Amino acid sequence: MKAKIITIGDEILIGQIVDTNSAWMATELNKAGIAVDEILSISDDERTIIDTLSESLESHKLTLVTGGLGPTKDDITKRALCKLFDCDMKNDVRSYEHNEKMLTERGIGFTELNKEQSLVPSVCRVLFNRNGTAPGMLFERNGHFLASMPGVPYEMKAIFSEELSPLFAEMTEGGCVMHRTMITTGIAESILAQKIEAWENALPEGIKLAYLPNPNGVRLRLSSYTLPAEQASAYIEQAFASLGELIPEYIIGYEDATVEKVVAAMLTESGRTLSVAESCTGGRISSRFTAMAGASAYYLGGVTSYSNDVKAEVLGVSRDDLEKFGAVSEPVARAMAEGVRRLTGSDYALSTTGIAGPDGGTAEKPVGTVWMAVATPHGTIAEKRVFNAERAVTIERASAFVIDMLRKELLNEKNGSER
Amino acid sequence: MKAKIITIGDEILIGQIVDTNSAWMATELNKAGIAVDEILSISDDERTIIDTLSESLESHKLTLVTGGLGPTKDDITKRALCKLFDCDMKNDVRSYEHNEKMLTERGIGFTELNKEQSLVPSVCRVLFNRNGTAPGMLFERNGHFLASMPGVPYEMKAIFSEELSPLFAEMTEGGCVMHRTMITTGIAESILAQKIEAWENALPEGIKLAYLPNPNGVRLRLSSYTLPAEQASAYIEQAFASLGELIPEYIIGYEDATVEKVVAAMLTESGRTLSVAESCTGGRISSRFTAMAGASAYYLGGVTSYSNDVKAEVLGVSRDDLEKFGAVSEPVARAMAEGVRRLTGSDYALSTTGIAGPDGGTAEKPVGTVWMAVATPHGTIAEKRVFNAERAVTIERASAFVIDMLRKELLNEKNGSER
Repeated sequence: MKAKIITIGDEILIGQIVDTNSAWMATELNKAGIAVDEILSISDDERTIIDTLSESLESHKLTLVTGGLGPTKDDITKRALCKLFDCDMKNDVRSYEHNEKMLTERGIGFTELNKEQSLVPSVCRVLFNRNGTAPGMLFERNGHFLASMPGVPYEMKAIFSEELSPLFAEMTEGGCVMHRTMITTGIAESILAQKIEAWENALPEGIKLAYLPNPNGVRLRLSSYTLPAEQASAYIEQAFASLGELIPEYIIGYEDATVEKVVAAMLTESGRTLSVAESCTGGRISSRFTAMAGASAYYLGGVTSYSNDVKAEVLGVSRDDLEKFGAVSEPVARAMAEGVRRLTGSDYALSTTGIAGPDGGTAEKPVGTVWMAVATPHGTIAEKRVFNAERAVTIERASAFVIDMLRKELLNEKNGSER
Repeated sequence: MKAKIITIGDEILIGQIVDTNSAWMATELNKAGIAVDEILSISDDERTIIDTLSESLESHKLTLVTGGLGPTKDDITKRALCKLFDCDMKNDVRSYEHNEKMLTERGIGFTELNKEQSLVPSVCRVLFNRNGTAPGMLFERNGHFLASMPGVPYEMKAIFSEELSPLFAEMTEGGCVMHRTMITTGIAESILAQKIEAWENALPEGIKLAYLPNPNGVRLRLSSYTLPAEQASAYIEQAFASLGELIPEYIIGYEDATVEKVVAAMLTESGRTLSVAESCTGGRISSRFTAMAGASAYYLGGVTSYSNDVKAEVLGVSRDDLEKFGAVSEPVARAMAEGVRRLTGSDYALSTTGIAGPDGGTAEKPVGTVWMAVATPHGTIAEKRVFNAERAVTIERASAFVIDMLRKELLNEKNGSER
C-alpha cells in the first residue's frame, strides 16, 4: 500500500517554516508497513488544494494532509474539502464542548472564530483533537482514504497516534516494508564505505543499503521492500551482526540512538553523575542532555564559561594558563572539566573550548579548532579536533565528539571491571 | 516565473531526516522574485527520478534538485541525469584537483570512490562545490533550467549562492513576488486575530495575510503575487505601520527577528553584559545566545543548575527557601538570577526553574509550570507561567518568554532614559 503526504501552506513554499511533520508521519507510516512514495508541499490556494487532493485520492490508497485548519481567514482547507466531497459543514458537538472548556480554562475566551473551529464537512468522520481546537477529519472514496489534520506538530501527532493509526491494520493487508538503521560515530563516510565495501557487496538480493551522514556521524540504513517479512528480518539481523564484528568501535546503537542517549542510559544504570563546562558549545551539550526526560537522575548541572573571568573565577582555571596557552588549549580544557567536576561534585565532567567562528581564528588556531576534555574519578583525558565547518555544525560536532569520548571511557571502565 | 524544488532520497520518505534544504532554497528564490509552487520529495529510484525530473523540466522554468550525489552506491542521481539528457560522463578537472587537495589535507586519502565524484554528465555546466567533493550541475532544455546539487546543507548553500543565483536575474524577466513578515511574541493567535480584525479587513486588494504561530510567538506575513513591485511595497509598508500603532508591545521586529537577536543587539549597543541561570531550560537559553556569532561581546556565561546542590552551592540559593517553597518557586527563581549575576559580574541575568515534564507535576504545580526571573542593576522581576505543552515546546516557550521579559526591561530603561 502506498501513501502520499501533502502539506498545505505558503509558509512552507516561501521557506518560512521547515516541514518537520512529514518526516514524523513518514516514520510512523513506515513502522506500520505503509510506504510513502511522495511528500508534496502546495500553496494555500483553493483550486490547487482541490485538484491536488482529488488526484492523490485517486492514485493513492492513503493521503495524509496537514495544515490550513487554523482559526484565521488564511486557513481554507476545510472549505476546499467541502467542495471536494460536495457537502456542507456540520457542528461537531464533542469538539465544540472541548474547545469551550479548553479556552475558558486557559483564560483566553471563546470567540466567534473559535466557535467555527468545531465545524467540519458533514461527510467526514471526526478525528478528535485533544490538544487543540481544530479537529482532524477522515474521508473515504472508493476504498481510498484521505485524512486532514492540523499542522501544529503536537496536535497532529496525538490525532495521528490515537485516532488515525488504529485504522492502519485494516488498510495494509499484509504488505511489508522494513527499515533498520545502525548509528555510527567518529568515522568519515568515505573511510567507512571503504572499510565495509566487501560487506556491502555481499548483502543479499532485496536488501538495500543507504549512507546517511549528519554532524553526529554516519547512519547506515538497510531496507527491504520486496522480501517476505520473516526473510527480510533475518537478512537484516545477520548483516548487522557481521557489521558489528567489523567496526565495533564506531557503533553506538540502532534507529534513533544518539551518543547522549547511550551515555544517559549508562550513567543512570550505574548511578553515576555528570556535569559540563562549555565554552564554544555554549550550552548545547547541557541542552542535549536536558532535552531528554529523566535527565535529573544523572545530570547535576553545568557552567557555560564564555568569558575568561568565568573560566578563572567560577571554574578555577589558572589565570597563568589562560595567559600563556590561550583559552583554546589543552591545559584550559582539562582545568575546565576538572573545575566543574569539583564544583558540582559529579563523577564525570565534560568540557569544550574552541573557536566556533566565523571570526576569531588565527594561523595557529584556525576557526573550527576545539579542545575537549573528560574528567573522571581516575584522571582526565583531552583531545583536539579541527572541525572544518560553519558555526552551527562545529557546535554540533564538538558536542557529539566530547560526549562520545565519555561513552568510550564508560565502555572501557565497564569492560575493565568485567575482566 | 515558477520554480519547483525536488529532493531525492528514501531517507526523507521514511522520515529519517527532515528536509531543511527546501525551506532555505524557497526563501532564497522568493527573495530573488521567483515563486515556488511545489516542493516534492521522491524516492532514490532511477525510473522515478527520470520521470519526475523530465515532467518538471517541461512544466517549470526552473527545477532545483538536491540529493543523491554522495560517493556511495546508493546515490544514483548522476546516472539518472545522464539518461535524462542522453549523454555520457566527463571528468571535471577543477573539481578533481579540488577534491584531491581537500581530502589529502584532511588526511582522509583520495580513494577510487572519491575520484568518481568529479565525473559529471557531459552536457552540464558545472556549479563548483568549494565545500565538498560532489559538484553541482546545471542543465538547460528549451529555455527551462534544471540544477542538481548535493544534499549536504552547507555545500548546497554555497553552490546556490555563489554559482547558481547569479543566473536568476536573467531568468526572472521582471516578475514580482513580495513577502514581508512581522514577528510578534507574547500573544495567542486567536486573541491577536481579534485585536487586528478591522485592520485585516481593511487590507488593500492583492495583499494577503497569513498567521504563522510557533513556540516563540505568532508571525504575521503579508504577501503580494500580482501587484507591481512599487505598489506592493507601499501597501505592505503602510499596513505594517498601522499595525505598529495597534499592537506595539507585541512586535519584536521583521523577517527572521527573534527575541534573542533583539536583546543581543540592545546589549551590544549599550555595552551591557548578560549571564543565565537555567534549571528547566537546561542550557537552551545559553545555546540560543551562543548560536549567534558575536555572543562573546555581551554574554559572559551561565550556570545550568539542575540539582538543588548546584542551586545552593554555586548560585547561593538559600537551602531554607528550597525546602520551604520548593525549587519551582518565585524566591528560588529570583535567587538564581541574582546569584548568577553576582557570580559572573554581569549587568543583567536571566533564570528559569520549572517542571518541563513529562513527569514531576503535582496538583499545585502541574507539568509546564515555570518561574522565570530577570535580575537588573536596579532590582529583580519574576513571573510564573503554566505552559500547556510537551517537554520540548515548554523548554522553547520558557526560553522565549524570559528573554522577552529582558527585552521589555531594556526597552523600558531606554525609554525612561530618553524621557
